[in-house]
Amino acid sequence: MVTRLVTDRFSRQQRLGVYRAIHERRDVRSHFIAKPLPEDVLARILDAAHHAPSVGLMQPWEFIVVTDRRVRQRVRQQFTAANRRAAALYAGRRRRLYDSLKLQGIVESAANVCVTCNPTATRGHGLGRQTMTDTAVCSTVCAIQNCWLAARAEGVGVGWVSIIDPKALHQILAIPQHIVVVGYLCLGYVTKFRRRPELEAKGWERRVPLARTLHFDRYGTIDGARARALGRLGKAAGDEGGRG
Amino acid sequence: MVTRLVTDRFSRQQRLGVYRAIHERRDVRSHFIAKPLPEDVLARILDAAHHAPSVGLMQPWEFIVVTDRRVRQRVRQQFTAANRRAAALYAGRRRRLYDSLKLQGIVESAANVCVTCNPTATRGHGLGRQTMTDTAVCSTVCAIQNCWLAARAEGVGVGWVSIIDPKALHQILAIPQHIVVVGYLCLGYVTKFRRRPELEAKGWERRVPLARTLHFDRYGTIDGARARALGRLGKAAGDEGGRG
Repeated sequence: MVTRLVTDRFSRQQRLGVYRAIHERRDVRSHFIAKPLPEDVLARILDAAHHAPSVGLMQPWEFIVVTDRRVRQRVRQQFTAANRRAAALYAGRRRRLYDSLKLQGIVESAANVCVTCNPTATRGHGLGRQTMTDTAVCSTVCAIQNCWLAARAEGVGVGWVSIIDPKALHQILAIPQHIVVVGYLCLGYVTKFRRRPELEAKGWERRVPLARTLHFDRYGTIDGARARALGRLGKAAGDEGGRG
Repeated sequence: MVTRLVTDRFSRQQRLGVYRAIHERRDVRSHFIAKPLPEDVLARILDAAHHAPSVGLMQPWEFIVVTDRRVRQRVRQQFTAANRRAAALYAGRRRRLYDSLKLQGIVESAANVCVTCNPTATRGHGLGRQTMTDTAVCSTVCAIQNCWLAARAEGVGVGWVSIIDPKALHQILAIPQHIVVVGYLCLGYVTKFRRRPELEAKGWERRVPLARTLHFDRYGTIDGARARALGRLGKAAGDEGGRG
């Protein structure tokens, strides 16, 4: 028997597009411009999110597209309150660094999208949800990452705001109690995509080499030579496909 | 002042590549072939995962690359036990349908990757983790989705096995208690990528139209006309960019 491989291969440029999106995606807070998002661009980005994998084909996500300026101002107020509490946890140089970071673009971006998950939905008939119970939320996070990558391909920046009390979002956006807020995103055209993550460029944290994250067959079984070789091979692809 | 837009745009083929990966990605269980994954392909896929967004640039993920056949057989035994318990929840036609599904390719795929998360790590200095506490796990799920999309661009299928007791994985793979198992993935070349998700093709669940997932400014505020228009615009892009 001859085993046929799939013939619907990606062209070199298509493959490069996938790696570019992955490597050039940034968590955008600072470079939004006022230009509105055309409906077809927004539609493609939301449709990309909607084509995420989901446990049992449950598709537990929903998207609240927020453009109303008053609603966004209320959300930003809640960010400001949560950020003040978060800043108080740092002191000295780390505090000054924290205070220098811009951590949201809620009002100046073109649109916000609150991504929610209904873990109580019966869609999917429970398949795959008995042993790993937070898989509905995981599916919804996959939708967010699809959104992020499609947006990058469209030249649209996305920032994920996690410094906000989910309860406040429930109230402002009238989200029922049984619905989980998974992510609050700011979307819009940008003046630039940073070459490196802002938190790296500003010295908040350094990136770990891939090799340091790899184990083989069992946790703690480190094969330094193989890990470093994989790290080098991966980096070579990143240098070709992206920039950061 | 003239606002410059970013010039590092994606070409049409690069953008198409991103949408193809998103629309043609499948949860693969049935079509793996024996061909091994070359190290450079594995490296690019892992490096793509490693370039996921992470809260505070925490990069809380680790990857256990499992190729040892005996280890994988033990994992499959645990799947079989969990799947027997899961199957017992269904009856009649639904049970027969469940039993007809192949839900893992643990041993016959080229490699397994167990993706873990260390939510106790101090990397990232807690930034963004005060109000939304499971953001470390969310970052790790973004890494899994990057892996899935990069694999599709490489012609490599990925299946996420969630029908397994995480405690069993902790034991088999010697994972410390404080490390969270987020996903157990099977990776390998395939004979084909299905046009539609298997669960849809076999009648387990139908897909929801994008329009049904959209709210505007507040949860429950449905704008049927705008939602349907966004759904149509999104679908047109999907029909061009992908197939399923």
